[in-house]
Amino acid sequence: MSDNAYGKLFRVTTWGESHGPALGCVVDGVPPQVPLSEADIQHWMDQRKPGSSRFVTQRREPDAVKIMSGVFEGVTTGTPVSLLIENVDQRSKDYGEIRDKFRPGHADYTYWAKYGIRDYRGGGRSSARETASRVAAGAVARQVLKTLLGPQVSIRGALVQIGEKSIDYSRWNWAGTEQNPFWCPDPAMAMDWEDYLDGIRKAGSSVGAVVEVHASGFPAGLGAPVYGKLDTELAAAMMSINAVKGVEIGSGFAAARLTGEANADEMRLGPDGKPVFSSNHAGGILGGISTGQDIVVRFAVKPTSSILSPRATLDRFGTETEIQTKGRHDPCVGIRAVPVGEAMMAAVLADHLLRHRGQVGDFRSGFDPR
Amino acid sequence: MSDNAYGKLFRVTTWGESHGPALGCVVDGVPPQVPLSEADIQHWMDQRKPGSSRFVTQRREPDAVKIMSGVFEGVTTGTPVSLLIENVDQRSKDYGEIRDKFRPGHADYTYWAKYGIRDYRGGGRSSARETASRVAAGAVARQVLKTLLGPQVSIRGALVQIGEKSIDYSRWNWAGTEQNPFWCPDPAMAMDWEDYLDGIRKAGSSVGAVVEVHASGFPAGLGAPVYGKLDTELAAAMMSINAVKGVEIGSGFAAARLTGEANADEMRLGPDGKPVFSSNHAGGILGGISTGQDIVVRFAVKPTSSILSPRATLDRFGTETEIQTKGRHDPCVGIRAVPVGEAMMAAVLADHLLRHRGQVGDFRSGFDPR
Amino acid sequence: MSDNAYGKLFRVTTWGESHGPALGCVVDGVPPQVPLSEADIQHWMDQRKPGSSRFVTQRREPDAVKIMSGVFEGVTTGTPVSLLIENVDQRSKDYGEIRDKFRPGHADYTYWAKYGIRDYRGGGRSSARETASRVAAGAVARQVLKTLLGPQVSIRGALVQIGEKSIDYSRWNWAGTEQNPFWCPDPAMAMDWEDYLDGIRKAGSSVGAVVEVHASGFPAGLGAPVYGKLDTELAAAMMSINAVKGVEIGSGFAAARLTGEANADEMRLGPDGKPVFSSNHAGGILGGISTGQDIVVRFAVKPTSSILSPRATLDRFGTETEIQTKGRHDPCVGIRAVPVGEAMMAAVLADHLLRHRGQVGDFRSGFDPR
Amino acid sequence: MSDNAYGKLFRVTTWGESHGPALGCVVDGVPPQVPLSEADIQHWMDQRKPGSSRFVTQRREPDAVKIMSGVFEGVTTGTPVSLLIENVDQRSKDYGEIRDKFRPGHADYTYWAKYGIRDYRGGGRSSARETASRVAAGAVARQVLKTLLGPQVSIRGALVQIGEKSIDYSRWNWAGTEQNPFWCPDPAMAMDWEDYLDGIRKAGSSVGAVVEVHASGFPAGLGAPVYGKLDTELAAAMMSINAVKGVEIGSGFAAARLTGEANADEMRLGPDGKPVFSSNHAGGILGGISTGQDIVVRFAVKPTSSILSPRATLDRFGTETEIQTKGRHDPCVGIRAVPVGEAMMAAVLADHLLRHRGQVGDFRSGFDPR
Repeated sequence: MSDNAYGKLFRVTTWGESHGPALGCVVDGVPPQVPLSEADIQHWMDQRKPGSSRFVTQRREPDAVKIMSGVFEGVTTGTPVSLLIENVDQRSKDYGEIRDKFRPGHADYTYWAKYGIRDYRGGGRSSARETASRVAAGAVARQVLKTLLGPQVSIRGALVQIGEKSIDYSRWNWAGTEQNPFWCPDPAMAMDWEDYLDGIRKAGSSVGAVVEVHASGFPAGLGAPVYGKLDTELAAAMMSINAVKGVEIGSGFAAARLTGEANADEMRLGPDGKPVFSSNHAGGILGGISTGQDIVVRFAVKPTSSILSPRATLDRFGTETEIQTKGRHDPCVGIRAVPVGEAMMAAVLADHLLRHRGQVGDFRSGFDPR
Repeated sequence: MSDNAYGKLFRVTTWGESHGPALGCVVDGVPPQVPLSEADIQHWMDQRKPGSSRFVTQRREPDAVKIMSGVFEGVTTGTPVSLLIENVDQRSKDYGEIRDKFRPGHADYTYWAKYGIRDYRGGGRSSARETASRVAAGAVARQVLKTLLGPQVSIRGALVQIGEKSIDYSRWNWAGTEQNPFWCPDPAMAMDWEDYLDGIRKAGSSVGAVVEVHASGFPAGLGAPVYGKLDTELAAAMMSINAVKGVEIGSGFAAARLTGEANADEMRLGPDGKPVFSSNHAGGILGGISTGQDIVVRFAVKPTSSILSPRATLDRFGTETEIQTKGRHDPCVGIRAVPVGEAMMAAVLADHLLRHRGQVGDFRSGFDPR
Repeated sequence: MSDNAYGKLFRVTTWGESHGPALGCVVDGVPPQVPLSEADIQHWMDQRKPGSSRFVTQRREPDAVKIMSGVFEGVTTGTPVSLLIENVDQRSKDYGEIRDKFRPGHADYTYWAKYGIRDYRGGGRSSARETASRVAAGAVARQVLKTLLGPQVSIRGALVQIGEKSIDYSRWNWAGTEQNPFWCPDPAMAMDWEDYLDGIRKAGSSVGAVVEVHASGFPAGLGAPVYGKLDTELAAAMMSINAVKGVEIGSGFAAARLTGEANADEMRLGPDGKPVFSSNHAGGILGGISTGQDIVVRFAVKPTSSILSPRATLDRFGTETEIQTKGRHDPCVGIRAVPVGEAMMAAVLADHLLRHRGQVGDFRSGFDPR
Repeated sequence: MSDNAYGKLFRVTTWGESHGPALGCVVDGVPPQVPLSEADIQHWMDQRKPGSSRFVTQRREPDAVKIMSGVFEGVTTGTPVSLLIENVDQRSKDYGEIRDKFRPGHADYTYWAKYGIRDYRGGGRSSARETASRVAAGAVARQVLKTLLGPQVSIRGALVQIGEKSIDYSRWNWAGTEQNPFWCPDPAMAMDWEDYLDGIRKAGSSVGAVVEVHASGFPAGLGAPVYGKLDTELAAAMMSINAVKGVEIGSGFAAARLTGEANADEMRLGPDGKPVFSSNHAGGILGGISTGQDIVVRFAVKPTSSILSPRATLDRFGTETEIQTKGRHDPCVGIRAVPVGEAMMAAVLADHLLRHRGQVGDFRSGFDPR
């Protein structure tokens, strides 16, 4: 990953700030002849957009995507796909306070320390608004994956924890994720969260969360050794999302508590002649390369740093002071991180799929004859 | 990160397999006039090398490093530093079993699925032996950091958990990490682990672990926005280490359980005119850029997949079979992951330091005058 | 250089087609606090824009640049600068003929061979209209160079040959380049070219040209060894411009005819304590690194492939046919290549300047004391 | 291209100095199952190695290549191929003079200006000895091309000009290139050159040359748009070779003198259903993508800067002085540049072939049905 770009063959460069005229991205490396329309992208933009429930920021942005290049007569041509999203609800409020003061937990102090200047309007480039570009690029990645691998591939995310409250995995139901404002796969917990988050929200507080993303239907053999590992790049992709502080593949930190016997995903032959695994502690990745099982990533999102209670801080002149954040914000920014995590998974897989084709040609079809 | 290389300006390319004649790396982007000798590197190699206690693999490798280029009259010249480490203890045993069978938890099946061929001798390229190159490159990075930033910078690692047994953080003592074979900062827990791991080892079993690495003395302002974040690249660096399944920055997954009030690292002015933070939930990184606090990374290492108990598996012809792993292995590969984690931290920081100099010139010296 | 991007630390990604709604670029790696306005860029855009004389294409494009991100209160912030240029004069003519036929000398057949699809409207992505993005990015590079190195640096281009007619180097006059529509530094030759090109233009023909670009005022020590050489990257930059078929540094191909004695640029000490060279066969670059002399690059531009005389060709069904190109085109595309060559020179130098700062810190100030 | 590496998917990193213990390269991205032995590489090394005739340097180096990794049971495994070449004839002569003095035309002054230090022994990293690594990597590239595309592909080079003496193209005979010590395709001119170069050599002088490289048997559709063009990357590859000052594709600078009518390569349908071109002014590349014709590159090599006649120069203390170069050198370094140019052509094509497979899948087989 570079400063403002990610991917090697499927390469996404994003630009734009929270309160500039627009933001967007350039997606280079899209193979030719992939069907792509603005509607294909908008479907996924609407999942991330603000203002969709009382549990997310009330900023009103349609997040309408325009395709500026790279598509001709409904399909991609192999040239860069440039996507543009206008900002329409940048409020012209007084930024005087955050212009000079460093908000704890935000990137205010560090951008200032690095650059000696910062666009203080709504966080500028460090705002989570940048993730709109990620979701747009992820939608292009999904089209690539569907076109090259077929409709059986899916990338789905869910919120599995808010604050202290984790879901019960035995009640996991993918369909449920679309029936509540949290992408929660446990309907009982979703109801619980509703009350809990209302309390947080009304108190002007915030809380952290954990997101889990699954990729299903992908063949074995995707990925690469040592530094370009599929899990290396997924870890980078997820950690690059605003407010993320931890990433796990498969059993993750729980694997530290296991013995080798307990952690082994044993292999048997399935009815379709492909391997079947007894478990998926590996999260679908061994040695950085996919096993053909579901690829499972989990990431922790810290609580939104914008809260009503005043916190001690400094201003840029070195004076001790306090700050409290009024105005629109997400009480649990983890909710809107779900479609973003899905988008990053899609982009990493599209990139590895294209690299794999370059490196080794077509997928192997099965076992060696004896 | 690329398939076999990492870093942008401080760029390390590694090569070599477990049972080839040698392995090594090329470090490109080392600034000129950095003092560097084989002894500078060997010091760190000896911390990772096998056979140093009964808790690590008994393979006997001196891991002697040769500098092949890039150093003249005791200092670097700015040209690539090529490092070579000969393999001397590749046993000529019969690999018949693992030649055809896929060991669960190892990369056997996935390399075969990707490449249709694998060097089955000792894991080939996917062996943890590759990490010798990382430690060598990390030693070069340490010299760069020390030369450019001064002797106050330090990068230290510790083992904080083996299996279910975590250290007591209130007993943390850096000096203790050099007084036991585990890099354990809690002397009482180190004794506990000794018995525990002896049991694991004698049973031919294995167990996971958690490693924590701290970088101290680094200025605020290192890092970059959005995708080239310091934490993004640390997550990638750690996840690329063999057997790692999870990475955390600062509070990590624990941050998901906190409120915004609890998670805020408040700022006050220190006696030296620099900010002092009330806590370090952020792990020294906000918005992908360093705050000047300690940079804190934690990663989970799964149990070694080589165990004596037989596990169900397939061979490359698709036949169901069993495999058990005899011979030399680490009962807890997390131990030797400590110096590897330190090395990756050093490399990421050296790279960001060089990028920072290119991007914004010298570090800012302090606050604006009012 | 990547498919649609160039530069390592000063990184430009371009997008857009001849007949799409717009084209543009994202410039990543611009250091913070560089003054930048739309007017700073527009000045250079106006030098390349079509329709400025009868010797260039009559397509009417204002080439108005919008800054979409990365600038705040008149200076850059260190985040990506996104630039947008709308297409306003895409004529809705019938493309029926070039939709199916491959125009000799154009990229029609090769894009089709690679992608199996092409945006045939006006050449799509392969149109020289893409160079508008280069000039915009080059203007940003100029601001970077001026800010970091001072106002004494200059990058200037000239047309030195059209068809068989070369300038007389003894009459070289930089001021003259702005007094004729050809960027010709030899006023006498400019008058000659006027008649010559009128003949070409009226015949519906076209002719090739040679462009020469000089960078003055740059310090010694810019560049890098072996593959990232300053001349390597200048060669790539110039060869990537549409219709360019050859690149020379300094004496270029003439050096092949010289002896070592004749080719040596001898060194003497100048009055300001810096080296003075007896000649500049090297074109200001030795071993890939600048000497402090003028950096001199020359490139050959082939004749525009769009001509009125019918040429034999194939269509995409494999049928033999003929094609002649009507409509607007440049009789000598080399004229508008001058500002493009300057822009590429500026981008390469800005990139090397930033890399140099990262690699070795500040420039050395002079000779060693004895 | 990076400082010491080139290629995107077929990525070569080289290291080593003229007088260090060894030099070599790491070739990452070699597809699996490509047959590769040391003999396959040595064949090409022997073409470049010094001491093969009286017209090249008399340094005696066997240039024996060792494969250190990435090959198992005679074929590549997909992991990095590390190649090592020991230096055996570094003479321990007195370097006192060139330690302090800057040789005109060499990189002495510029390395010193950039790094403030240089390995003055034999040119260090800037020595043409580095090209041994290029030829080794090129040999690997040839195996890749042969394996993926078949035995009909060929990459051949020739010397077409020494000093003022150019070959007669009408006498071109590929077989002839192996029958004289110059890779000269014109047997009559080869005899002429023999006398001419003997004079140069005995006078302790040197002279420049022009090399031409052809790639035959490659399909249409290799390459990429805009910045990653096949010609862009060939220009960079050739310009990165020591002493190269100019690069041409196809007609090159001669195209500047042509009209559009004369420069058009017209297309007709060949007997095998593929296009046949009336000429090859384009050098086999249009819009950066191959046409299926021979790919033709030419580059100018300046005269060796090491000559017996004294030249005026400075030393590193700023004192005016003189230098003359005794000892072993090439009177015409262009001769040994021929196999180097071939190797770079092979590497660029291998890289583009792998990228192409990633970007667009298999090659199109022919025209559309009507």
